Amino acid sequence: MEKTGLSLIGIGPGNLDLMTKQAIDVSQSADIRFLEGYTSSLPTESQKELENMVGEWSMLMRPMMESADEILKIAENKKVAIMVIGDPMIATTHIDIRLRCLERGINFNYIPGISAISLAISTSGLQSYRFGRQITITYQYGEYLPISPLIQMVENRSRGLHTLALLDLDPTGMGVEIPVPMTPEEAGRILKEMAKKSEENVEDIESWNVLVCSDLGTFSERIIATTVGELCNIHGGRIHSLIFPSEMHEMENLAFNSWKIHS
Amino acid sequence: MEKTGLSLIGIGPGNLDLMTKQAIDVSQSADIRFLEGYTSSLPTESQKELENMVGEWSMLMRPMMESADEILKIAENKKVAIMVIGDPMIATTHIDIRLRCLERGINFNYIPGISAISLAISTSGLQSYRFGRQITITYQYGEYLPISPLIQMVENRSRGLHTLALLDLDPTGMGVEIPVPMTPEEAGRILKEMAKKSEENVEDIESWNVLVCSDLGTFSERIIATTVGELCNIHGGRIHSLIFPSEMHEMENLAFNSWKIHS
Repeated sequence: MEKTGLSLIGIGPGNLDLMTKQAIDVSQSADIRFLEGYTSSLPTESQKELENMVGEWSMLMRPMMESADEILKIAENKKVAIMVIGDPMIATTHIDIRLRCLERGINFNYIPGISAISLAISTSGLQSYRFGRQITITYQYGEYLPISPLIQMVENRSRGLHTLALLDLDPTGMGVEIPVPMTPEEAGRILKEMAKKSEENVEDIESWNVLVCSDLGTFSERIIATTVGELCNIHGGRIHSLIFPSEMHEMENLAFNSWKIHS
Repeated sequence: MEKTGLSLIGIGPGNLDLMTKQAIDVSQSADIRFLEGYTSSLPTESQKELENMVGEWSMLMRPMMESADEILKIAENKKVAIMVIGDPMIATTHIDIRLRCLERGINFNYIPGISAISLAISTSGLQSYRFGRQITITYQYGEYLPISPLIQMVENRSRGLHTLALLDLDPTGMGVEIPVPMTPEEAGRILKEMAKKSEENVEDIESWNVLVCSDLGTFSERIIATTVGELCNIHGGRIHSLIFPSEMHEMENLAFNSWKIHS
């Protein structure tokens, strides 16, 4: 194993038992460890557990990651581990880091992790090849509410494709505060706002099926099948994503119905 | 932990260091272990290593998995582990097993793994939210060559979305033989056949960009940026998937170019 360089390490969706052997080994062997803290967040108890598993670490926020000079300088002489919740190579910034290492001749090592994105799709029981483009439902900034996520979902539906929606966790849009994951209730409210502004034929949005995927991969994992109109009744949980199925095949229907709450 | 029941366990893309801690623990603690052997395959040396890591196992092919009665019967009284290369909840059959356990009151436990699908997307450096529906390029059976994968790719391209293509590994279509992963060369030939049969405007298919992702997550991982016309010159490697980028953003272009071979 190299003696210097930068490892970008996926630690999985939050339950540290879902770290891979390689992620644990490489994190342990690093001289300096960071946890990327602005695209997701770990529950407090897992933060402590991570330290017990791999050693001391400090939190890394967006400004330092984007300038990155300081980190790259350390990586020229030491082994640096940047641990990222989920998988590290989804957001642009992290790709940038790989390219900058290549450019400067710094050893670069990418260790994949289980991401909430693939976990939502696989856990749902819907078929992965029937998913279209994924969307992100962002917080509303004052009067500003882009309706492109809804339009993309409508496009997917018209092609018979399901849509995975990630929920924003940065109410300021700056990546400097502790993340505040959007609740299903708020996502439902924002979607209905979008529908009002949209010229698409989406008057029936309240009746659309939706799977609420909460805290996937953790002990408090919960999946609930409901409708957009009922999202306001979903409470609890920490981090959520939503799946909007289009027309479902028979086996998908059975899978979807298995997540309904029967009370 | 439960004393009976069925665990469906993702063991990751082939490099066993990418098994999660949970996958290792649950496999070890099972009374009986199977490795699902028809949707993917492990190199011989990894098969032996898996035994050293978790204990003895036997191979499970499609007919037994689809009937499943025998397995479910064992799972009523013992802890059964079905290990699956990649992530277990992509193919329909495996979803079926969860539903049948629910129905029969058998404990069911799903442990996610890193799949080649998410790995191809993340390793590529392209942005995950710009991927459209994924396709599978299947072997040609005699004269029969469906062109729907190409049509779906054209649809993605027209929306500015990238396409991930999985390559078939079952030349018989029956799931009973040892898998024979399709080569990039063969995939290129089949794509060009599809283009000839298609009424889409795809005369320029030879010039389309493509990323060849080979043996991802293993020590022989290799990614090559090339074109469809040049796929016939790509040799070596065991299991491949292809990514067809549509128009790329600036950072994606840099990422794509970083995979070109400079000789």
